[in-house]
Amino acid sequence: MTDFNDLPAHVWPRNAVRQEDGVVTIAGVPLPEIAEEYGTPVFVVDEDDFRSRCQDMARAFGGPENVHYASKAFLTRTIARWVDEEGLSLDVASLNELKIAQAADFPAGRITAHGNNKGADFLRACVQAGVGHVVLDSEQELVLLDCIAAAEQRVQQVMIRVKPGIEAHTHEAIATSHEDQKFGFSLASGSAFRAAEAAVRAPNLELVGLHCHVGSQVFDATGFTMAADRVLALYSRIHRELGVQLPELDLGGGYGIAYTEDEEALDVDEVAHDLLTAVAKTAAELGIDAPTVLVEPGRAIAGPGTVTVYEVGTVKDVTVDEGVTRRYLSVDGGMSDNIRPALYDSRYDARVVSRFTEAPGIPSRLVGSHCESGDILVRDAQFPSDIETGDLMAMAATGAYAYAMSSRYNAFGRPPVIAVRAGKTKLMLRRETVEDILALEA
Amino acid sequence: MTDFNDLPAHVWPRNAVRQEDGVVTIAGVPLPEIAEEYGTPVFVVDEDDFRSRCQDMARAFGGPENVHYASKAFLTRTIARWVDEEGLSLDVASLNELKIAQAADFPAGRITAHGNNKGADFLRACVQAGVGHVVLDSEQELVLLDCIAAAEQRVQQVMIRVKPGIEAHTHEAIATSHEDQKFGFSLASGSAFRAAEAAVRAPNLELVGLHCHVGSQVFDATGFTMAADRVLALYSRIHRELGVQLPELDLGGGYGIAYTEDEEALDVDEVAHDLLTAVAKTAAELGIDAPTVLVEPGRAIAGPGTVTVYEVGTVKDVTVDEGVTRRYLSVDGGMSDNIRPALYDSRYDARVVSRFTEAPGIPSRLVGSHCESGDILVRDAQFPSDIETGDLMAMAATGAYAYAMSSRYNAFGRPPVIAVRAGKTKLMLRRETVEDILALEA
Ligand SMILES: Cc1ncc(COP(=O)(O)O)c(C=O)c1O
Ligand SMILES: Cc1ncc(COP(=O)(O)O)c(C=O)c1O
Repeated sequence: MTDFNDLPAHVWPRNAVRQEDGVVTIAGVPLPEIAEEYGTPVFVVDEDDFRSRCQDMARAFGGPENVHYASKAFLTRTIARWVDEEGLSLDVASLNELKIAQAADFPAGRITAHGNNKGADFLRACVQAGVGHVVLDSEQELVLLDCIAAAEQRVQQVMIRVKPGIEAHTHEAIATSHEDQKFGFSLASGSAFRAAEAAVRAPNLELVGLHCHVGSQVFDATGFTMAADRVLALYSRIHRELGVQLPELDLGGGYGIAYTEDEEALDVDEVAHDLLTAVAKTAAELGIDAPTVLVEPGRAIAGPGTVTVYEVGTVKDVTVDEGVTRRYLSVDGGMSDNIRPALYDSRYDARVVSRFTEAPGIPSRLVGSHCESGDILVRDAQFPSDIETGDLMAMAATGAYAYAMSSRYNAFGRPPVIAVRAGKTKLMLRRETVEDILALEA
Repeated sequence: MTDFNDLPAHVWPRNAVRQEDGVVTIAGVPLPEIAEEYGTPVFVVDEDDFRSRCQDMARAFGGPENVHYASKAFLTRTIARWVDEEGLSLDVASLNELKIAQAADFPAGRITAHGNNKGADFLRACVQAGVGHVVLDSEQELVLLDCIAAAEQRVQQVMIRVKPGIEAHTHEAIATSHEDQKFGFSLASGSAFRAAEAAVRAPNLELVGLHCHVGSQVFDATGFTMAADRVLALYSRIHRELGVQLPELDLGGGYGIAYTEDEEALDVDEVAHDLLTAVAKTAAELGIDAPTVLVEPGRAIAGPGTVTVYEVGTVKDVTVDEGVTRRYLSVDGGMSDNIRPALYDSRYDARVVSRFTEAPGIPSRLVGSHCESGDILVRDAQFPSDIETGDLMAMAATGAYAYAMSSRYNAFGRPPVIAVRAGKTKLMLRRETVEDILALEA
């Protein structure tokens, strides 16, 4: 049975502790103090958690520069600086993500640019900035980038995004001929080889590797090795037919994290070890140099260290079936600050953080304040029966794809984001106000 | 077979026309001119379409004040002014929606406040502003509002939100005991009656009616009459047992619109006629005065008059099965400016608007530029085979719940919103820039 006072270590930030008075602190800062000072809802980021996951990834994959933080998961200037200070590389997937990285003085050489539809502005900005790698996603883009690089008198290092025909769902990896997605060049049809050939021949492009990404929130690591095996076969063909040894292999992101007590995060050390071993072995069998393996985790770095703190408002018991009652707990945020439950049916772990509770659990649903019945944060849970208006609840592992996908639905302003470290708070992003919303009016 | 040059009148803005040169204009303004001046993606709002739908609703429901535009569908200061000028009332569902209405000098007496978790700040602002109605959603709120009204020395008119036990899905209405939602008081359990009784007794509240909302994008109008019948039974009981005749009955929003050629919007005149007749008849049978019927359409007013104009970028053919090819057309927006396809599997009508096309259709998918394979705008369509990079495509009926739910995913700035009328454009909301995003950084 769940002890509602626990903070499962594999789900909550590394520096989350419930004190003797029942209050939860992160990095020594009591969450109620943050709520008091900045209001609710509020995102709280455990800086050391974020940095330590950068370090874990760096160690596992043989050096920080091999790990590209996928900034789409969550990007601010501060985050870009942390990533830089930890020596990691950075993935951007839009011109504005690149601009935010530049605003943080992130070294352009350690940036990789992604996207299925980059556009001339973005590509030009990449070349001008001196971005390390551009991952090419279509023939049109290849031609366009070569042109732009020529105009800028540069040779741009590029990778080719390939579809390895592997689908890594959360709990299983499937080898499939399924190619029905917008990203990449098909391995199976030969179009990936043709793109590599075109890139090798393009005067202002230098092909340094191939890229693939098998999925997100992956728990079955065989998907990564299956993909690596297939892609390496193309390395061998490129070596044989084009006489080029590609030095790098980018296997994308997707490392699964635990959102709820019953989940277990992918063991990064183990996966990295197996993956690097497999790549070395396959390369040896194919008679090619083993490329350096690059990875692009977003969620596994940014996700676990952040919680969202809400204040409980309306508490309402609803009879859902003969005699069965569900308690609806409304909080002061919702689908605007976290669309993932509505969009992906994602599950989360939420706990009272302002005090102990000894009450038994009852069937409950945590809902937001939006004018929409689908505005649900935790669909089906047992929560202690003594939760009442004014209690603070925090939802764990909200660091990735929550703020990044946040909206202003119902004209809610985005919550502030507060970094905590060694007993101190630092405002990372301030709360949005109605003035920010009205600022767009002509 | 679809003629790709058509603009189905029941889906596209009332003033959308394809000119003889193949270019689509709205209210006389060529969409390529707007794209040229403001860039893409861009929302274009046909002002007369919006206003005419206000007028249609007002006529159907016996007066503009009976129609409350649900501002959650799309709200800006300009929109609030249009609604005001047409004489309609306005629903708000958050403190910031109220503030935007106030910033447009919308008469507070014609505002109704909604929400499952309003909070003291919002309620106090309602009372201080002199908001016409507050729709009560819980016992806690009832007590709190009475208190706040007392402190402000006001009597606040209120309605009670009830769950009539009707679920109106898109294509059918179901009478059900299903009560499992966050909104409202249960009719069946008697809690709605008890709330009405408490409101009647509360010294600083004046109960003026009951409210219900059976669903959104409803095509089967029997859901509205079924709900009205059930709620009127409670009017009768309130009359009998509390001696109060409630003058108003708010039946919510949900009027379905056509997003695609094969859909047909709910006929508002017909529904209104049937609904008003049914309410009068049931009231007579129950021996009570027929209350004035109020409605709260959002989508049916804001939805059809707006299109989103995108520029086509990457064009890619993907072999999805032995020999079967799907063309992926990437555009320069996506799930950030319209989450509805990803969130609700919503379908849309998209057409080339910069020229004629005589090409045959091929299996196609319209996708956005986000770094996510689920970033799909039109999943499965036939599009003309001659669409190429640089063509402008517009997606119709994007006026409701697109901009309103838009995000900054991948640090995309929100598109601008341009109103058009009688050959003239007016900037309603400017494009968001990376500076807007960085403005939140501490
Ligand atoms: C190309 C690419 N790299 C990296 C990532 C990051 O994935 P995650 O946050 O699951 O690690 C994604 C996510 O979709 C992606 O598309
Ligand atoms: C209470 C209420 N009124 C009105 C509406 C507007 O609905 P629509 O835009 O479908 O007309 C909604 C939408 O969910 C609602 O919850």
